[in-house]
Amino acid sequence: MVDDDRFIVVGNGSTQLFHALLYALSSPDLPEPINVVAAAPFYSSYPEETKFLQSKLYKWAGDANCYDKDEPYIEVVTSPNNPDGSIRGTMVNREGGKAIHDLAYYWPQYAPITSKADHNAMLFTFSKATGHAGTRIGWAIVKDKVIAAKMVKFIEVSSIGVSREAQLRAAKILGVIADDCRNADHKGENLFQYGRRLMSERWGKLREVGMKSNGVFSLPKYPRDYCKFTGEYTDSKPAFAWLKSKEGLNCENLLRDKSKIITRGGPSFGVDSTYTRVSMLSRDVEFELLLERLAAIKGTVNGN
Amino acid sequence: MVDDDRFIVVGNGSTQLFHALLYALSSPDLPEPINVVAAAPFYSSYPEETKFLQSKLYKWAGDANCYDKDEPYIEVVTSPNNPDGSIRGTMVNREGGKAIHDLAYYWPQYAPITSKADHNAMLFTFSKATGHAGTRIGWAIVKDKVIAAKMVKFIEVSSIGVSREAQLRAAKILGVIADDCRNADHKGENLFQYGRRLMSERWGKLREVGMKSNGVFSLPKYPRDYCKFTGEYTDSKPAFAWLKSKEGLNCENLLRDKSKIITRGGPSFGVDSTYTRVSMLSRDVEFELLLERLAAIKGTVNGN
Repeated sequence: MVDDDRFIVVGNGSTQLFHALLYALSSPDLPEPINVVAAAPFYSSYPEETKFLQSKLYKWAGDANCYDKDEPYIEVVTSPNNPDGSIRGTMVNREGGKAIHDLAYYWPQYAPITSKADHNAMLFTFSKATGHAGTRIGWAIVKDKVIAAKMVKFIEVSSIGVSREAQLRAAKILGVIADDCRNADHKGENLFQYGRRLMSERWGKLREVGMKSNGVFSLPKYPRDYCKFTGEYTDSKPAFAWLKSKEGLNCENLLRDKSKIITRGGPSFGVDSTYTRVSMLSRDVEFELLLERLAAIKGTVNGN
Repeated sequence: MVDDDRFIVVGNGSTQLFHALLYALSSPDLPEPINVVAAAPFYSSYPEETKFLQSKLYKWAGDANCYDKDEPYIEVVTSPNNPDGSIRGTMVNREGGKAIHDLAYYWPQYAPITSKADHNAMLFTFSKATGHAGTRIGWAIVKDKVIAAKMVKFIEVSSIGVSREAQLRAAKILGVIADDCRNADHKGENLFQYGRRLMSERWGKLREVGMKSNGVFSLPKYPRDYCKFTGEYTDSKPAFAWLKSKEGLNCENLLRDKSKIITRGGPSFGVDSTYTRVSMLSRDVEFELLLERLAAIKGTVNGN
């Protein structure tokens, strides 16, 4: 499908499209598998997805911050980043380098929309836009027709195609949301305003608990920027909270052992264990429980 | 999901499950990629699906009829077979050999159901059972829990999962069909009886045209067997007709050039070009056109 000079490829979630892009950006003509890197902390599934199929075409080469090989590479850039919510660009920036921009979280409820995304290869997912993860619909926007054709071939060989039911439902829902956002006579909130308000409320509560924790754990700060979608200056309200505990503490173990909070620790994301990732997208009752338990940690840790 | 001592794994069509089985039956501990074979004529996508991802775990090793290596292997057995409709078992039968049984066409409209399928790893697809190819739902039934777990992991890493919409629709439709088949007070035909009647009518017409072709092309004969589902003796009515032309003719080119009939020639399936595969599942108007054009070939070829 063509949108101006771009090509849209639909996949079984953006995960299948990530695999399709690795395939399409690799080449059997290279003497060695192409290096795949991402700046730490990186999405914990990238290393596994890159290594799992044991392809001869590409291999995981770790943290982009430390990448110094003079070899072909693909850099995966997640912006806003999972797990830490930071706004990112490529780190390696070498001539001939290739990039995959994963924009799963580049939606107004999570981050200010500062410009129209315009990278060579971009991944989006229905899952993070509206919450319909189970539909398994992702889309890639790519500029190179040859890359797009290779991705389509990848999807054909991997799964022949993408469920028609899933495509129809996603298209219908996205259409209704888009119409609603364009409706000038709108009286209530549109989906993204609703999501933004919810995320702001949750982040406000979490930061309050964090400030009272006496430094047991801290949260990243995000710069304010102008959001072209909402027309307001705002900072990011990421889908995950990236907690950092005091030096010497293992944040994941601390939360699990002291408070029965299950998180994913820093090492899964290529960094040390003072960090851990907590979902901000749980249901209200779970989120309130999370706040209660985090608030209670202070005393426990200080008391030790 | 457990059914007695078996495990059911749902995938994005049986194609994804085929990849998942290749992964699950391979091992990174082997010194060489495991050989994947199928007896020719074999489904034309198997070689491509096996080679495409350039996995270090497995490699395509061609026709099972000629396989004589003393190395680990996986044999893919399609029964009834695509393209030729034959009922098949494993060809290699060596100790420690592994098999994938693709039972996409083992439904009463295509073949007599002679026994409950009971192989170690079996593939099924909604596509060929009811015609809902676009839903992209397949299921594998495997006996080994470890293999099932590896397949689930493969699907998780490849596409996280399978569209919930697709699963719900397929489960509903299959449930309605199963209830209908079990209904003793049934007045009309159930889906499989309807499909069987249609396939029988089409095959009757095609064989008539074949007989009048003076040997320009011939069709396989299928043995009669007792179908436990319909309670009748019947022969196979495959989803594809496997045409063979006179020696020295290229059947695919002949049909395309003389009659504008697009088919897939023998070489795609690992055999010579006197063979070609024609779909028997087109719409009525197309099928009638196919018959007309095939009937007209006789004169053209004889006249040359």
